[in-house]
Amino acid sequence: MRVLVVGASGVLGRAVVSALAHHDIVAASGNSDPAVDLRDPASIAALFAAIGSVDAIACAAGVTPFKPLPELRRDDFQAGLDDKLLGQIELVRQGIEQLADGGSFTLISGVLAAEPIQTGAVAATVNGAVEAFVRSAATGLPRGQRINAVSPTAFTETWDSYAEFFPGFVPVPVADAARAYLRSVDGVSTGQVFRVGY
Amino acid sequence: MRVLVVGASGVLGRAVVSALAHHDIVAASGNSDPAVDLRDPASIAALFAAIGSVDAIACAAGVTPFKPLPELRRDDFQAGLDDKLLGQIELVRQGIEQLADGGSFTLISGVLAAEPIQTGAVAATVNGAVEAFVRSAATGLPRGQRINAVSPTAFTETWDSYAEFFPGFVPVPVADAARAYLRSVDGVSTGQVFRVGY
Repeated sequence: MRVLVVGASGVLGRAVVSALAHHDIVAASGNSDPAVDLRDPASIAALFAAIGSVDAIACAAGVTPFKPLPELRRDDFQAGLDDKLLGQIELVRQGIEQLADGGSFTLISGVLAAEPIQTGAVAATVNGAVEAFVRSAATGLPRGQRINAVSPTAFTETWDSYAEFFPGFVPVPVADAARAYLRSVDGVSTGQVFRVGY
Repeated sequence: MRVLVVGASGVLGRAVVSALAHHDIVAASGNSDPAVDLRDPASIAALFAAIGSVDAIACAAGVTPFKPLPELRRDDFQAGLDDKLLGQIELVRQGIEQLADGGSFTLISGVLAAEPIQTGAVAATVNGAVEAFVRSAATGLPRGQRINAVSPTAFTETWDSYAEFFPGFVPVPVADAARAYLRSVDGVSTGQVFRVGY
């Protein structure tokens, strides 16, 4: 299979590339060639124009602001929606034409959709939206295309930076999340949210 | 209690006003006085400036586009997010200062967060976001304030217009959903999604 991995240079993305190494990987990220900015629909169009058709599209990118609820402005919510939600939806919208029959989309959500932390209201909102989008979109994709989300808890590899924000959480190796991408890409599921580590 | 009901003139909103009739109701909607447009943060600010403090804020308003997935444009998603998601988040953001100690927010989501229909991808996305926002925001509100969502299936009263889009669904009387608002406003729960009819 030819697999587009968006966010391939990140901590999770590198693990996804490793887990899918038996495939022909097209690695895209914010500073790679091909480059992509999830916030910019034109950059997604340029990416697809550059790479042509693929058999799977896996996204390991998407950022949201982290602040306590009373400090969150409307712009913070819009910023998270623009990047991790509308960016991933745009990958699907534009990707449908580029994705082979029976091909798969794999999006990223995260534990904060289900479990609160003090600074996680935007991430929760965005992740909840991604997961509900996946459940619905799975029923409307053409030509046997599939779509799933991977929803990991915090990662062992970045735990030093995040432990204070996730009190009592148990991090998992990023390879565990990468295996959920493998399950989505090489498996048969659709409309599923693969929780990893929670 | 003094209770602000947003969307009070709609089919659901009128039932919410009836269910909360033992309280002092401030009824707001798009064409009432006080008027409010969820898409316009300034109109929400004007509403709160006009009415002063309240003991509960209940929203029965919020619209999203309905189209099959392949016809959905990015603007359709943004339109649904602007109205039913960011509009309700803005009611909370701006409402925190206006809401009494121990007061409650009650937002509206809906069955499509969990159950797909052909034209429901935007509604699903928005409802999933609302529900995850509520779970997270409940942990960050000040002064004992609470927040819940009511997530109803389709309504008996509007079934003639919606039956074809909800094949095999069983509608419920709008009064059933209104009772969930009563439970949120007069009860003690927070961070809950009250499913109604599914």
